[in-house]
Amino acid sequence: VTTSETWSPMAVLGVGYMGGSLALAVRRAQPGTRVVGYEVDGEAAAVARRRGIVDELAARASEAVRGARLVVLSGPVRSLGPLAAAVADEVPPDALVIDIGSVKAPVVAAVEATALAGRFVGCHPLAGTEASGPGAADETLYQGKPCFLCPGPRASSEAVARARRFWEGLGCRVFTLGADEHDVIMAAGSHMPHVGAFALAASLLPKADLLSSRGPSAYPPTSLRDSTRVAASSPTVWRDILLENRTHLLPLVAQLQESVDELRSALERNDADALHAILAQGQAFRRRVFP
Amino acid sequence: VTTSETWSPMAVLGVGYMGGSLALAVRRAQPGTRVVGYEVDGEAAAVARRRGIVDELAARASEAVRGARLVVLSGPVRSLGPLAAAVADEVPPDALVIDIGSVKAPVVAAVEATALAGRFVGCHPLAGTEASGPGAADETLYQGKPCFLCPGPRASSEAVARARRFWEGLGCRVFTLGADEHDVIMAAGSHMPHVGAFALAASLLPKADLLSSRGPSAYPPTSLRDSTRVAASSPTVWRDILLENRTHLLPLVAQLQESVDELRSALERNDADALHAILAQGQAFRRRVFP
Repeated sequence: VTTSETWSPMAVLGVGYMGGSLALAVRRAQPGTRVVGYEVDGEAAAVARRRGIVDELAARASEAVRGARLVVLSGPVRSLGPLAAAVADEVPPDALVIDIGSVKAPVVAAVEATALAGRFVGCHPLAGTEASGPGAADETLYQGKPCFLCPGPRASSEAVARARRFWEGLGCRVFTLGADEHDVIMAAGSHMPHVGAFALAASLLPKADLLSSRGPSAYPPTSLRDSTRVAASSPTVWRDILLENRTHLLPLVAQLQESVDELRSALERNDADALHAILAQGQAFRRRVFP
Repeated sequence: VTTSETWSPMAVLGVGYMGGSLALAVRRAQPGTRVVGYEVDGEAAAVARRRGIVDELAARASEAVRGARLVVLSGPVRSLGPLAAAVADEVPPDALVIDIGSVKAPVVAAVEATALAGRFVGCHPLAGTEASGPGAADETLYQGKPCFLCPGPRASSEAVARARRFWEGLGCRVFTLGADEHDVIMAAGSHMPHVGAFALAASLLPKADLLSSRGPSAYPPTSLRDSTRVAASSPTVWRDILLENRTHLLPLVAQLQESVDELRSALERNDADALHAILAQGQAFRRRVFP
């Protein structure tokens, strides 16, 4: 039996889908937890307040963190470094600071360059979906999900232990790995599927009327539904993720270009063997990763 | 109340996932239906027999169709024309002949060039999944699914009416549309999602070990699972579909190449606005097609 640390008051900087869900999840696990939010998007702020995700919305991020036991950085990943810098002087010395961004190395480096270093642990709960905004926030979102901890070189072992207990308290399975290793894995495992889905969906935009359920097809195929699902995700959130992880992504995007080129060339040449070879590579990947 | 036509004996030429499921579905709707199969793949034939999908396997397709009330052409789409030609002389004059291929215009043209013209109705039940082979055959696969009828210019109205009753008897919702219109819709709605999924999966093949559940990531992201799902499909089946519909597909594949190129270029230039614009196009497509 471990002593359960309580996290009230908790500051959530960025009360969108992920941050809002986290606030709800903590309140579910620890009823009575006070949540102070900060949100630049006025509409999202109003929804967060209406849904009772936050007790209070601060006008400035630096006000939201005053007295907090836990500070969550949860906006688009490119905003997290500046956000950390903006609040660093006001975060209590004994607070735990985490982020929940999908790219870790640049975020960890940026936050560790502020006075939050030591108290900060980069986190990535693998719980996102294509939803966005606090209207979709869900108190069960994190339950049973894996959560990666990527402590930077300056993170204290106490902060890492507290972060682990925090996520375990929400029902996550916690794994620790290096921020660079995390970003390499996510480039291939998560960011490339988003690249593929967004590119496919964007390329089909001229066919939207043809394929809509109000059009002649009546029933959009399940292949279309699944392969473009994550293209419903927030363009702002994903713009930041892809840019922050561009070093690892670019060689993989080049590889995707090559596969599309090969496939097109085989189709153009009516080359059944070459086409079969590419499709068989795709099937081989799928069978190895999802046996 | 309509008089229910019975389909016994039924010849299924190609006893894979789709053909095998159809045989099971007919036997479920009309117990006692006798099914004679023909299958070039020895392993699939053995599975079909072991699972009781067929009562009998004929050594030649032309033997399987003798005395049949219903003949189903269900191999890879490029095999259907030659298959129709091989059995045409043996199919009883009062039999209904259908196929269940995913491309319609070339199949309809090929079959209507044989003595089966008049009795033949091109069909495409929108019921497939990434599964393949008779081991995955499922008697409920077609239930509640849309089924497109694409009768060619030579199809008799009686054959069309019988085909409609056949599919309705299995619980399908039947739509009639032109073979070309069907192929245009499916190029964008089904074949392109497969192109995208196969290309993405093939491009990630060098990362298979990294992403497998036995690797460091432990939990492959749901985005990867969904966006590559249909890459698990049979390369042989999809090679034929893509080649048969290449005229409609090639401009869409070129469009996909362009979207991937734009996305890569925006990443390379670190151009946040250009990247956001592409992602927003993808989201716009998704919202219009799956509101």
